[in-house]
Amino acid sequence: MNNPELQQRLRAVSQLAAFNNWLGLQVDEVSSGAVQLSLPWRAEMGQYAGFMHAGIQGALIDTACGFAAATLSGQVLASQYTVRCLRPAVGEHFRVVAKVIKPGRQQIFAAAELYATRNGEETLVACGDVLLVPQAQQKTESELQG
Amino acid sequence: MNNPELQQRLRAVSQLAAFNNWLGLQVDEVSSGAVQLSLPWRAEMGQYAGFMHAGIQGALIDTACGFAAATLSGQVLASQYTVRCLRPAVGEHFRVVAKVIKPGRQQIFAAAELYATRNGEETLVACGDVLLVPQAQQKTESELQG
Amino acid sequence: MNNPELQQRLRAVSQLAAFNNWLGLQVDEVSSGAVQLSLPWRAEMGQYAGFMHAGIQGALIDTACGFAAATLSGQVLASQYTVRCLRPAVGEHFRVVAKVIKPGRQQIFAAAELYATRNGEETLVACGDVLLVPQAQQKTESELQG
Amino acid sequence: MNNPELQQRLRAVSQLAAFNNWLGLQVDEVSSGAVQLSLPWRAEMGQYAGFMHAGIQGALIDTACGFAAATLSGQVLASQYTVRCLRPAVGEHFRVVAKVIKPGRQQIFAAAELYATRNGEETLVACGDVLLVPQAQQKTESELQG
Repeated sequence: MNNPELQQRLRAVSQLAAFNNWLGLQVDEVSSGAVQLSLPWRAEMGQYAGFMHAGIQGALIDTACGFAAATLSGQVLASQYTVRCLRPAVGEHFRVVAKVIKPGRQQIFAAAELYATRNGEETLVACGDVLLVPQAQQKTESELQG
Repeated sequence: MNNPELQQRLRAVSQLAAFNNWLGLQVDEVSSGAVQLSLPWRAEMGQYAGFMHAGIQGALIDTACGFAAATLSGQVLASQYTVRCLRPAVGEHFRVVAKVIKPGRQQIFAAAELYATRNGEETLVACGDVLLVPQAQQKTESELQG
Repeated sequence: MNNPELQQRLRAVSQLAAFNNWLGLQVDEVSSGAVQLSLPWRAEMGQYAGFMHAGIQGALIDTACGFAAATLSGQVLASQYTVRCLRPAVGEHFRVVAKVIKPGRQQIFAAAELYATRNGEETLVACGDVLLVPQAQQKTESELQG
Repeated sequence: MNNPELQQRLRAVSQLAAFNNWLGLQVDEVSSGAVQLSLPWRAEMGQYAGFMHAGIQGALIDTACGFAAATLSGQVLASQYTVRCLRPAVGEHFRVVAKVIKPGRQQIFAAAELYATRNGEETLVACGDVLLVPQAQQKTESELQG
């Protein structure tokens, strides 16, 4: 199912994003409208109790949905996203899968699930959805905004 | 309006959160049910176009709402949060203000606004809201999930 | 998969809800943590262009998720819900399916999909998610609120 | 602050919406980017415990935000909305105020608050936000979708 050309393109985009590099994000698998990313846990990703910070969970869900949308529409910007923290996000390794729910010329709806692997067992810890805007149009809007 | 005792307590909590330290979060002002945090921009917070990564914006909104709730209810966990990316998040300095919209024993609703200062001018770049659960109860639930 | 006892219980609950009766909601199928409801279109459900009003779409998503949660936790109240309007909601018949994503003692996460049948063809027109609170606890909170 | 011309235009639009008529929605006040609507309670708006059905609360928030956006952009369609049920929605009379948070050519962010008056005392019972798309563009997208 992996499309090596799309994967190569998203890896190049991800390397342009300084925060993605900090996260250590790996682009594991890409197909039309869907991606899987993963990353190893690092202690500096923690909130006060040592779980993965909800903000990092959101960054993963936002990024994965953005990449899934980008397979269909080129560069995109998130317009709104929601993160549902289902269980404590604790693990040595995290995996996020995203897919486009509804493509569109003006708006793209995507959704993602975040899994943590702890002692070899994988659990769904969060899910979320993102509404994205293809960037060519957004750029025009930014120009209008001056 | 600042309550130095609450401020001191939240600063101590923030220092326990490794990712808050990485962000360089400062706890500027705290009162009952409301906080203001701020941080300087760093290039490693960027997405591919160099704007602040939407995930970082979410981390700021989530953290500020969590702190606002914590002034009323002790430790809390975010159960769900939403980030609305209103304008490109570009600036040298960011400021996030949060307040509790509706306190409760089981659930706390909070909302936040994120401002960027660029060339001395401050703009609202994102807003969002967070639903939080006081942690004493959540802990019990985690035990049940055990 | 249908559990006739749960179905009977939810039908009785639905009949207590005046607005559910107005909607003409039918409780088609119920199992532990999941339901399917349906209803015929009526013109008074329309927005200005004659599509199903987004508020009705929300009522269906909210109600279906509440019923799915109620199969696990007795009476529940929605604390927050989101509706994503994917396509124009036009049809002679509507069907909404909901399932619990994550049960809990304090909070229940559920999600739903709304389908429209038009000229014999069924399309996904909206989806959404609901965060619910088991009512026994909510009642206590209301008492505290006076 | 009321703009009688905009008010007249929104009243005409509201009368085209069959469900708005069923709700008994009154367009009390309109200015550029903001509206106030109100309606009397009727028993058929109830959920099982007799509170206003969360779906009706959503319809009010969605409609008020759509009207606020329409003062700036002509006809709009809701793309996504969220309702936060803060307190039991019980009263003889309801009032919803909405305003545009961020206008745009492609997307409009709006937010609303719903108040209930019970025994002469008014309480905030719900709030929410809506992301809207100006309809001229949406129409084009629908055409593309066939």
